[in-house]
Amino acid sequence: MAAVLRVSINPNVLANKMSRSNPSRPSRTTMAIMSQDHPYWASVHAEIEVHLKQHILVRPPLSVFEPMHHLVFSAPPSPGPALCVAACELVGGHRDQAIAAAAALHLMHAAAVIHEQLLSTDRLKTKPKPRPMVHSPGIELLTGDGMFAFGYELLAKSMDPAQNNSDRILRVIVEMTRAMGSQGMVDGQYHEILMLCKQSRYYKYVCEKKEGGLHACGAACGAILGGASEEEIERLRRYGLCVGVMIAFSNRVEERNEMETTEVVKELRSLALKELEFFHEGKAEAISSFLHLLNL
Amino acid sequence: MAAVLRVSINPNVLANKMSRSNPSRPSRTTMAIMSQDHPYWASVHAEIEVHLKQHILVRPPLSVFEPMHHLVFSAPPSPGPALCVAACELVGGHRDQAIAAAAALHLMHAAAVIHEQLLSTDRLKTKPKPRPMVHSPGIELLTGDGMFAFGYELLAKSMDPAQNNSDRILRVIVEMTRAMGSQGMVDGQYHEILMLCKQSRYYKYVCEKKEGGLHACGAACGAILGGASEEEIERLRRYGLCVGVMIAFSNRVEERNEMETTEVVKELRSLALKELEFFHEGKAEAISSFLHLLNL
Repeated sequence: MAAVLRVSINPNVLANKMSRSNPSRPSRTTMAIMSQDHPYWASVHAEIEVHLKQHILVRPPLSVFEPMHHLVFSAPPSPGPALCVAACELVGGHRDQAIAAAAALHLMHAAAVIHEQLLSTDRLKTKPKPRPMVHSPGIELLTGDGMFAFGYELLAKSMDPAQNNSDRILRVIVEMTRAMGSQGMVDGQYHEILMLCKQSRYYKYVCEKKEGGLHACGAACGAILGGASEEEIERLRRYGLCVGVMIAFSNRVEERNEMETTEVVKELRSLALKELEFFHEGKAEAISSFLHLLNL
Repeated sequence: MAAVLRVSINPNVLANKMSRSNPSRPSRTTMAIMSQDHPYWASVHAEIEVHLKQHILVRPPLSVFEPMHHLVFSAPPSPGPALCVAACELVGGHRDQAIAAAAALHLMHAAAVIHEQLLSTDRLKTKPKPRPMVHSPGIELLTGDGMFAFGYELLAKSMDPAQNNSDRILRVIVEMTRAMGSQGMVDGQYHEILMLCKQSRYYKYVCEKKEGGLHACGAACGAILGGASEEEIERLRRYGLCVGVMIAFSNRVEERNEMETTEVVKELRSLALKELEFFHEGKAEAISSFLHLLNL
């Protein structure tokens, strides 16, 4: 079970804001800073992209793989996969041990975004359409299904007898199924529909289940693959949860000078840094740099 | 890669029929015979259902798990999961080794049916609506995503240190991702859209990728989990493919006295029995009884 944040958020103020913003809008500013100005995050993102490009080829049947290729590489960027790699390195693992899981997490995130967009078409009327749909809804639905399956395939195929890592990979698969399934992303997406329909009180819940859960999962999976202790895994999971909810704010709230938003982000940043105190300061420098880069 | 059947099917005759039939219609006659009149298949189906009922509970959040429970247990029955158990027992494995995989396969099948039904709503206009939709399209889309994830979770959690079965489970996960993903079910569903739109030549391809692939996967996974040799796995995969394509005919063709259909089914039955000749006659009796029960 993912830890639940104990940060108080005024749901009314934020739900009003959210209804005017776009939940699927990528945090381009954050990602641009991460990728261009910080060599560590730039190199991690580049390696994940190389891994995806090696495995997601435009091949027959073209009618199926061309939309997948397009939708994987045009997905809004998420820092969750990079957190997976950083967590692995923090606990003494090698980057290679986490790259397949990070690539799988990008696929899951991209597939969830595609299916979420289908909920926003005029027939379902839940929220504004986030981007023009390039493929037909049927193709986007099926491509999302194919991407979820391919994410699990990439993970399962990363089994390496030389590393004797089968048990860790199975544990990571369970982590991802929970983050993406009915207790995680699906639950968040469902409550987001309810929230947007009724302006209700699910804002915090949705942020934790969606971006929070994805980043908690990324950090926990990286830690597991890097050979972390149970305490290290749980601390990194909570760090990822804080980071994910901070990103949820970055993605949803247009006016960042809103006092309540600032307060919540400040509290989350403090909680996140507290989790990193457990680790050696020098080693945690890379993963904590993420917090300083977040443009919130 | 799944073996490709070398059976010649006249696509024009069958595509015309298919456009009048319902691809998602459960083969109730076949299933009823299997479950009621044959103690072996009845007991296998009962054990898979018990496993599913133990793991798919109506629990909080009810808004998410109630539709999942309903959609899992109201899905059209498929013999694919039972084939998984039978293949495991044929190669000397114990039924318990294959029950989680069989339950996961039912979840995947049920989720694929739900998403396929979304393709048939009036907005997408690809084929007739197979059943009244109980939940909103958005909920059915998300519930399908949750069911795919839960299928992989059930599989990954069936890791048992006492059995040292992690590598086999990871191999089975790869088999399922391929059967359900862009090279399997998704490819078949996509080509079915094309076929129904254009009355084109994809009939055989669709049958192999959908029902064929699901049953080939079920039989291969059961064999892998039961500790089969590579030759046993491939023979059972081809047996499953034949069975699946025969079932595809049962599900799609209303007039069974059509000469071409009968010829194809006869050829498939012969190919299927040929694969079983490799196994000890007494041991193959249960799995081959399936062919005699098929009401084609």
